[in-house]
Amino acid sequence: MTDKMKVALLGAAGVLGQRFLELLAKHQFFEPTALVDVMVGKRYQEATKWRLSSQMPQTFREMKIQSVDSISKGEVDLVFSALPGGLARQIELDLAKKGLFVVSKAKDLRTEPDVPLIVPEVNGDHLSLIKKQREQRGWEGAIVTDPNCSTTILALTLKPLWDRFGLDSVAVATMQSISGAGYPGVASLDIIDNVVPYIGEEEEKMIIELKKLLGPEDKPAEISVAASCNRVPTIDGHMEAAFVRTRKKVSPEDVKKTFAEFKGLDLPTAPHQPIIVRDEPDRPQTRLDRDAGNGMSVVVGRIRSDEVFGLSYTVVGHNTIRGGAGGAVLVAELCHSKGYI
Amino acid sequence: MTDKMKVALLGAAGVLGQRFLELLAKHQFFEPTALVDVMVGKRYQEATKWRLSSQMPQTFREMKIQSVDSISKGEVDLVFSALPGGLARQIELDLAKKGLFVVSKAKDLRTEPDVPLIVPEVNGDHLSLIKKQREQRGWEGAIVTDPNCSTTILALTLKPLWDRFGLDSVAVATMQSISGAGYPGVASLDIIDNVVPYIGEEEEKMIIELKKLLGPEDKPAEISVAASCNRVPTIDGHMEAAFVRTRKKVSPEDVKKTFAEFKGLDLPTAPHQPIIVRDEPDRPQTRLDRDAGNGMSVVVGRIRSDEVFGLSYTVVGHNTIRGGAGGAVLVAELCHSKGYI
Amino acid sequence: MTDKMKVALLGAAGVLGQRFLELLAKHQFFEPTALVDVMVGKRYQEATKWRLSSQMPQTFREMKIQSVDSISKGEVDLVFSALPGGLARQIELDLAKKGLFVVSKAKDLRTEPDVPLIVPEVNGDHLSLIKKQREQRGWEGAIVTDPNCSTTILALTLKPLWDRFGLDSVAVATMQSISGAGYPGVASLDIIDNVVPYIGEEEEKMIIELKKLLGPEDKPAEISVAASCNRVPTIDGHMEAAFVRTRKKVSPEDVKKTFAEFKGLDLPTAPHQPIIVRDEPDRPQTRLDRDAGNGMSVVVGRIRSDEVFGLSYTVVGHNTIRGGAGGAVLVAELCHSKGYI
Amino acid sequence: MTDKMKVALLGAAGVLGQRFLELLAKHQFFEPTALVDVMVGKRYQEATKWRLSSQMPQTFREMKIQSVDSISKGEVDLVFSALPGGLARQIELDLAKKGLFVVSKAKDLRTEPDVPLIVPEVNGDHLSLIKKQREQRGWEGAIVTDPNCSTTILALTLKPLWDRFGLDSVAVATMQSISGAGYPGVASLDIIDNVVPYIGEEEEKMIIELKKLLGPEDKPAEISVAASCNRVPTIDGHMEAAFVRTRKKVSPEDVKKTFAEFKGLDLPTAPHQPIIVRDEPDRPQTRLDRDAGNGMSVVVGRIRSDEVFGLSYTVVGHNTIRGGAGGAVLVAELCHSKGYI
Repeated sequence: MTDKMKVALLGAAGVLGQRFLELLAKHQFFEPTALVDVMVGKRYQEATKWRLSSQMPQTFREMKIQSVDSISKGEVDLVFSALPGGLARQIELDLAKKGLFVVSKAKDLRTEPDVPLIVPEVNGDHLSLIKKQREQRGWEGAIVTDPNCSTTILALTLKPLWDRFGLDSVAVATMQSISGAGYPGVASLDIIDNVVPYIGEEEEKMIIELKKLLGPEDKPAEISVAASCNRVPTIDGHMEAAFVRTRKKVSPEDVKKTFAEFKGLDLPTAPHQPIIVRDEPDRPQTRLDRDAGNGMSVVVGRIRSDEVFGLSYTVVGHNTIRGGAGGAVLVAELCHSKGYI
Repeated sequence: MTDKMKVALLGAAGVLGQRFLELLAKHQFFEPTALVDVMVGKRYQEATKWRLSSQMPQTFREMKIQSVDSISKGEVDLVFSALPGGLARQIELDLAKKGLFVVSKAKDLRTEPDVPLIVPEVNGDHLSLIKKQREQRGWEGAIVTDPNCSTTILALTLKPLWDRFGLDSVAVATMQSISGAGYPGVASLDIIDNVVPYIGEEEEKMIIELKKLLGPEDKPAEISVAASCNRVPTIDGHMEAAFVRTRKKVSPEDVKKTFAEFKGLDLPTAPHQPIIVRDEPDRPQTRLDRDAGNGMSVVVGRIRSDEVFGLSYTVVGHNTIRGGAGGAVLVAELCHSKGYI
Repeated sequence: MTDKMKVALLGAAGVLGQRFLELLAKHQFFEPTALVDVMVGKRYQEATKWRLSSQMPQTFREMKIQSVDSISKGEVDLVFSALPGGLARQIELDLAKKGLFVVSKAKDLRTEPDVPLIVPEVNGDHLSLIKKQREQRGWEGAIVTDPNCSTTILALTLKPLWDRFGLDSVAVATMQSISGAGYPGVASLDIIDNVVPYIGEEEEKMIIELKKLLGPEDKPAEISVAASCNRVPTIDGHMEAAFVRTRKKVSPEDVKKTFAEFKGLDLPTAPHQPIIVRDEPDRPQTRLDRDAGNGMSVVVGRIRSDEVFGLSYTVVGHNTIRGGAGGAVLVAELCHSKGYI
Repeated sequence: MTDKMKVALLGAAGVLGQRFLELLAKHQFFEPTALVDVMVGKRYQEATKWRLSSQMPQTFREMKIQSVDSISKGEVDLVFSALPGGLARQIELDLAKKGLFVVSKAKDLRTEPDVPLIVPEVNGDHLSLIKKQREQRGWEGAIVTDPNCSTTILALTLKPLWDRFGLDSVAVATMQSISGAGYPGVASLDIIDNVVPYIGEEEEKMIIELKKLLGPEDKPAEISVAASCNRVPTIDGHMEAAFVRTRKKVSPEDVKKTFAEFKGLDLPTAPHQPIIVRDEPDRPQTRLDRDAGNGMSVVVGRIRSDEVFGLSYTVVGHNTIRGGAGGAVLVAELCHSKGYI
């Protein structure tokens, strides 16, 4: 265990923090040694209420919650931030100034031009921004971010189409699970037997982040995006109905082949197949497909022609694994394997 | 009670039949006098299991189920058909031949060129096809149909846009309730904590029927339509996220005004306001808005510009009232008021 | 409108407050003239977000929220309290001291010996405690309370059994809807695809309040009660599975007859039949039966013998109508008709 | 792989059959070599639609569905029956006559006096009935059964109480998941936003089977049982609220200790801890606790005194694993380890 990288986790007691610990409990590169949250001094099992259907990993139960001030470069090699938006910005900036390497799930710094926003299979090359970031900001640390959950899931499917056929425009309607809103998040009175056609800032994030992911590192991709984000009564897993206009004309068969050929990375958390194509008319389904590839693959189906855009399909991905903690862990693995950490 | 029109109801024991009876129990024009279903001879309350949250209306409990053969022109003035698709075609044709006026919710004859497909506020003028139908088919009866539930709801919002701004194309993603599938319909194991991205033939129906509704009586409207139909775990009410390209450029304010000005008809089941516009960012919602206008209005919100189509909005309507029995009753009221029955 | 009693509503902006306004919008005795909540000075429609599937009644939209201090005896005749437990005690005591007649849904004062806890069909005679309360407390006002939702529903069924057969003991397992917890109440992440076997203080309330309701005004009934309270993913309506040991031996037929004969009161909100008996093996059901008698009746079924207690049955009632605002309005109607207000 | 026992699975294409295959895909004793269902001759992946959130195990995809007649003693060593009740009786009897050892989940033969009904941790000694069964029936095969899901879960908790304190009576209210009803099973229109207080024959099964499990092999235990079985909108996992009267007086602490000390068996599918005790006030919960011990443990909480029975608690178990395929596999493991197979 001694040669693993030491990791601090900010926001360890929240639901997203719990997902991080679930994934990091037996990770081959990373070992959480500092759990940061507000109830400083409490043992982890007192400071949190475990809300996942797994058991709280034994390793973390007795660890004491630390304050963010106690995190220093000598003691940890990497910081994961599961902090809420708004709160994250200043804390992450301070840590980077102190020389720490931060991989963040928070939205606050995603759109800064010198902060990489990464889905490893999509735009790992954007990590080169780290060099620019360090020069501009004059620090030795780094901040690398991971997109919003619904963006990650869609981006994984758009990337191979972008590369092979070019993309003109995309309209997407999402059907997102409640776990995306954290805890307590969505009130049950708002969502049982209901759909809520609005998630604050979600559509704006999808539009801006998709363009950043698909473009070169220094400017947004030239693509039009429209999004309609909806909350539905499911626990985990986001479904997205996409209408896509490619630059080159495509057939559904071309698209299936392109998705199936999209290669996975050779990293511990990376799924062998980032995109799994299902041929049944009624797949993907949220509950049946969210766990594909340990929650790190996305599952695509209903690939068909349409008379407005040319191409329609549906994709499902796990919002708190691929679109959450798992995505950030994969980004960290990529940073590590490329020598940034 | 003696001067009401006598009405036969086909498929009286099904869930759709129950909705018809709920609406017709105290109707000012129509009085159900013949309940047709398979358990001929049984009293209605023995032949059915009431699945609505209302009570079974007292009037119908003791009525005996009749066979379809027992329906004749002398005894009833109007036939509502709540028969399942497939079964409906021949039965409805036979009744029209016997001189009966049939208003049908079944899909079987909707696309025949001489069969009116009607949403009263949208294309009541298509009833003129009845004359043509009678000439061509050589019968004194008539068959008039009502569209698929998700089509009706969207068409109500497209009509005023079509008239005022023209429409080039529409892409729609639906989030449809389980009651749309009848009983037993969707297995609970398929839909709790799940979304199913497929409803058999639904997308095709939306595309074809929307064009018939918006066009003149003798040919489809020139508009491109793409649809992605999804089943979500809600009881009643369909939500639809629409992306719309108008021919004339529009602002969200123009659209709100146009919707709000869209006039209701002066018929017993017609809502005063066919389209209710909500300004809150998180409306319409399925559970909160499906009952607007006694389930006969549709509620629109999130009207906004987008960079792909120009216009996006979300609409909710009650699938088994406006999109079901209520829609058909309104069609019959229109036929009556225009002197066709 | 001038001869209606003027009513203040405390907690008007909460979900329970909304139910009160829904029921009082066209009430024949009472007219809300003062809406009290924290956002003093705001118009009601700005101060609240309407969470019921009905529309916010027109009458209240423009009314200004008042502070509790502005309520005085000259201006209102009756105060309904929809305040949260904890907060309610002091406010209600102060109002009673100022001479106001308070009907409260809050738990705080229910168990005080001189405060009537009333289900009108069960123990309306306990209102005689008002006299004692005024003497002991030396005020001209009054505080009358209404039980916890799950208690009211069960008590309505126990009362006729108590009167006719005597009761030795009751064990009850409840399956309670989320609306019982108010808003935001239960987090969706805690209840979708889940049952939570615990509702804070609920079991204690059921035990204590049932004994107070069934006993004479000055001491608890001699009956043993065990309760297991569970939260299930339903919107409205509490189901309760009761196991009952009567003092006299009973048959299921005796019990059905006794329930069916239980008389309603002649008050505006009182249901004609407080207990509706269903014979189908699978009724009552939460969604299908919660609205019976406009949500003021309870529906009982599965009445059967068992080898442990002798008698088992299941009851469903509407928790926010009969067990909430409707129950309190009915209490006020009774106070009014008996001349207490 | 060659030295594993060869296993036939009856009802392989149903949801219960799928659970069996999920558990047997990598089993250390058993290897499914014959999949029996109605679509004889089809490959398994054509004959079924996989409804679990796992992937269909690769091994079975290409296997051909066989008829029950093709099963013979020489070719398989053990038969698991996942047949529906009613259909199972004759088929299982015929197989036993042909010399096959049948472990059945079907209800049909559970109550026959010479057919063991087994929960391994509860009454493994009842397997001695096999000898009697063979003598009486004159066959070399055997039929061993596994109880109804809700019975198994409760019996696991009653057994240690029975042994240590004696039991007088039990009343139980269940909150059962939809997967207990198979596929298509419960219609979604019957269960979303609803509770159904009735599951056909379930209460009778619980009463009869509990007595058989707790008694000696040749007569029912002397205990009174009352049950109220309810269906709630959860996917997997049954919750049961139990009220228990022990013969010796017990404290909650005695009971916790007794549960925690209850030993697991040394068999591949047996959980280390059959009963897991949780101290939090709001556990067990259906979604969070159903998977404990890979779905083979039951989780108990809310252990408390009550004034009617003396003892109340709540238990959750996985209905299709411990109460379904997993339970039957464990029975077969016990038969194997005791030398019966």
